[in-house]
Amino acid sequence: MKREIPPRRANRLLNAGCVVFVTAQNGGRSNFMPAAWVSPVSHEPPLCCVAVAPKRFTHDLIASSGCFGLAVPGLDLIEKVRRAGDISGADLSDKFAEIGLTAVSGSKLGVPRIEECLANLECRVVNTLTTGDHTLFIGRVVAAEADPRAFDETWLLPADRSLRPVHHLGGEWFAVLEGRLHVPKMVG
Amino acid sequence: MKREIPPRRANRLLNAGCVVFVTAQNGGRSNFMPAAWVSPVSHEPPLCCVAVAPKRFTHDLIASSGCFGLAVPGLDLIEKVRRAGDISGADLSDKFAEIGLTAVSGSKLGVPRIEECLANLECRVVNTLTTGDHTLFIGRVVAAEADPRAFDETWLLPADRSLRPVHHLGGEWFAVLEGRLHVPKMVG
Repeated sequence: MKREIPPRRANRLLNAGCVVFVTAQNGGRSNFMPAAWVSPVSHEPPLCCVAVAPKRFTHDLIASSGCFGLAVPGLDLIEKVRRAGDISGADLSDKFAEIGLTAVSGSKLGVPRIEECLANLECRVVNTLTTGDHTLFIGRVVAAEADPRAFDETWLLPADRSLRPVHHLGGEWFAVLEGRLHVPKMVG
Repeated sequence: MKREIPPRRANRLLNAGCVVFVTAQNGGRSNFMPAAWVSPVSHEPPLCCVAVAPKRFTHDLIASSGCFGLAVPGLDLIEKVRRAGDISGADLSDKFAEIGLTAVSGSKLGVPRIEECLANLECRVVNTLTTGDHTLFIGRVVAAEADPRAFDETWLLPADRSLRPVHHLGGEWFAVLEGRLHVPKMVG
């Protein structure tokens, strides 16, 4: 069971730079794709950005609906992350079913949340910018949820690596974070 | 000794979401600050973005010079990352000296590179966007370098953790990536 996260704290879900699934839906079609180019960009209001190539089917669903979801997969979903990047949902009736993931309609914006993921965010597009060969969607986080075994204020990085997010080094190389390091503020 | 990285491959330095020092200089003043909100946003041309709060001294140096540097610290610099975020260079004659880091003028744009860091990028601002309480600077990567013990096509994540980048979970919590995981493309 996931727990709701206040949108103003949801930046912590993205702060360490993990891979996400970007989800979107419009007019009865829905889709998702993996992305590493995602970051928080504002505390108040809570905003994040994600870069999506225009050729992606998900790109058109975001552009037409004005909304997107971000779902954070754990290490147990790494093969699905890989495969989801290699096939296009444009030619499939249901990419979620094809990959073996469960889409649930988000409570705030209706964008797909992914049941098997560690966390989900729902975002409303507030700005769109062309950045070279990608489109940068700036979204306001309006809802978020996370698995409390994996996240409480920050990612907990427990011994069970299926409860840790995944990071994409590039090409065929990925990694997960080791345990948390506490680095207290120094006085003076 | 660092090795030059072609700008089109420099996105691999940022892809996994590590913490950077953002550097800038103008009119004889130079400064730097840690940032986690950074991401590649285009392959061709090679672009990246970084979100900087307007109250930061580094913000004004970037805005006035139209250039910034990104330097990637290893785990051995974690205390300096923490301290650099807590003090402002506006009141210091030389924040690099105050923190104990060595600034070297970048070969392409003159933005400060940091000698002790694992990698450096030099970026020219091509677009600026206000995103809530931050300014999002979009920069074109015009030069990059990395320590070959730490990076070769991707971060290598060797046993020596001082050669691994640092990730900010939020607040006082940080982490480094474990070793690399190879996840080959699946056929069919």
